[in-house]
Amino acid sequence: MLGKQDWLLGIDIGGTTIKLAFIDKEGTIVHKWEIITRTAENGLHIVSDIGKSVRAKLEEWQDGNLVGVGMGAPGPVNFENGSIYVAVNIGWRDFPLKELLEKELGIPAVVDNDANVASFGEFWKGAGKGTNDLVCITLGTGVGGGVITNKHLVHGISGAAGELGHITVQPEGGAPCNCGKTGCVETIASATGIVRLALEKIKEKPDSGLSLVFNEKGLITSKDVVDCAIGGDQASQDVLDEVAKYLGLAAANVGNIINPDIIVIGGGVSKAGDIILKPIEKYFKQFAFPRVAESTEIKVASLGNDAGVIGAAGLIMQQLGQEI
Amino acid sequence: MLGKQDWLLGIDIGGTTIKLAFIDKEGTIVHKWEIITRTAENGLHIVSDIGKSVRAKLEEWQDGNLVGVGMGAPGPVNFENGSIYVAVNIGWRDFPLKELLEKELGIPAVVDNDANVASFGEFWKGAGKGTNDLVCITLGTGVGGGVITNKHLVHGISGAAGELGHITVQPEGGAPCNCGKTGCVETIASATGIVRLALEKIKEKPDSGLSLVFNEKGLITSKDVVDCAIGGDQASQDVLDEVAKYLGLAAANVGNIINPDIIVIGGGVSKAGDIILKPIEKYFKQFAFPRVAESTEIKVASLGNDAGVIGAAGLIMQQLGQEI
Repeated sequence: MLGKQDWLLGIDIGGTTIKLAFIDKEGTIVHKWEIITRTAENGLHIVSDIGKSVRAKLEEWQDGNLVGVGMGAPGPVNFENGSIYVAVNIGWRDFPLKELLEKELGIPAVVDNDANVASFGEFWKGAGKGTNDLVCITLGTGVGGGVITNKHLVHGISGAAGELGHITVQPEGGAPCNCGKTGCVETIASATGIVRLALEKIKEKPDSGLSLVFNEKGLITSKDVVDCAIGGDQASQDVLDEVAKYLGLAAANVGNIINPDIIVIGGGVSKAGDIILKPIEKYFKQFAFPRVAESTEIKVASLGNDAGVIGAAGLIMQQLGQEI
Repeated sequence: MLGKQDWLLGIDIGGTTIKLAFIDKEGTIVHKWEIITRTAENGLHIVSDIGKSVRAKLEEWQDGNLVGVGMGAPGPVNFENGSIYVAVNIGWRDFPLKELLEKELGIPAVVDNDANVASFGEFWKGAGKGTNDLVCITLGTGVGGGVITNKHLVHGISGAAGELGHITVQPEGGAPCNCGKTGCVETIASATGIVRLALEKIKEKPDSGLSLVFNEKGLITSKDVVDCAIGGDQASQDVLDEVAKYLGLAAANVGNIINPDIIVIGGGVSKAGDIILKPIEKYFKQFAFPRVAESTEIKVASLGNDAGVIGAAGLIMQQLGQEI
């Protein structure tokens, strides 16, 4: 068992800021703060920036000692040795992050992909607290996610497990996706996908509320679509219904394969609330095997921006042999 | 470590026969045999039949002692306590199989669903030997399967993980499935589904080779479709192409979620060989996320009817804390 004053360090790095937190073994954030992501010289100074900041905070608070560090990073990660293949926004390429963190901080480290880490946060302390199997679908500019079975993250043979945005939901006639194929759920249910559907709908229904907003602003966002739908605009509601249909189909097929306790919907688009969640649930139940429809729950993510630091702390805690 | 003479007992029960095998810790079958499934009095005597037969064989061969027993049974299983909810063909209902096996044989037992157990066999000693993550799709009268991640079977919250036949591949206009919904891959890629498509094709192409066979025999089987396709009949090839397309889509979405080392295709229909496997691979690559298409392999099951007893032995070995 960890001692009372033992803390885990959770780190979540993005292109502009690095979130850091001291977290106790119950998964409660004791202290959290942010520093700037120094991308100069291909991110060469980031690990020492983290080290300096952490030592200063430990000195400042003086009531805990670190036993391990977990860190989520964007882009593909080599889970064997904890190095980052490539993180474009940060400048890293074949960057031995785990090794450098351990050297800098003198404690065991674990490194994983940021979508996986955030999913593990929701599993440990968020919407999936107390579950065994959880799948997280994150709706942002793209669609990502993470898969946890028997309380452990699934990485897959080349780290592509949890690439839920690329579930094919339109085998024929689907829109092209950045990944190179067509008909991915990301082409429909990401913020970008919603805008694409909205622009099609505006052409089709030039008198709709959605078209009025577009004509006024000269552009349309996924939030506009949600706001118009809540305001009663039929065209916007039709767009969200199509989004929900394919997202419900993707979620149902996740359910038919894994039958997790919970499928967590997170990310910006999920903040639209019931206007999108209720139809997702409806289509999920339509496309899921009956025993799955009855047992697998759909829930909204609950940790917000803290999912990353909490998940990172949970991962190192599990690695240190602690029960999660 | 297990001693040299320590054996595992693997059991695979069906409606007419029970397969039994003594298996060493390397997964090699030392002795195997079968007994009749005595369904009288709702299968009340089955466990004592197993006990008598096993003791006789141990006496006969005298060179091993049993350290654990694994058993696969049809129908839903309560994994918590190893009881069978209901096995229609055998007569069991809320039957405490694990408890009775342990009492009868005096060794630790594990009980699981037969599709899961066979998948675990392919994972341990078959097409998936040496892998970490494996998904098995079994094409028979229906379509079933099993999911293994991080070397452990995934059961899901209500035991419905691996219900791969009920992946929805036709969200609109699909045929009704026994499960109550429509558009399940089982309605297309099971032996029954293939016959359904063949009958449609016969109406559409009354001059095809398939139609000639149908007119001669008065019925058509999935094997007829395969034989006609191999013989060059275009109508039959079209049927198999449709089967492969939706099976490839289902397999690709399994890959996009889990990115397993291998997706194993098993069951009677898989014996058709390249005429069905090559197009499955083609569609799999079309619908899979590029990194998944490059890394996840499609392979044919290799253990045949031994998958059940080997998988059952592997499961109890894992339960006893042995490395798999």
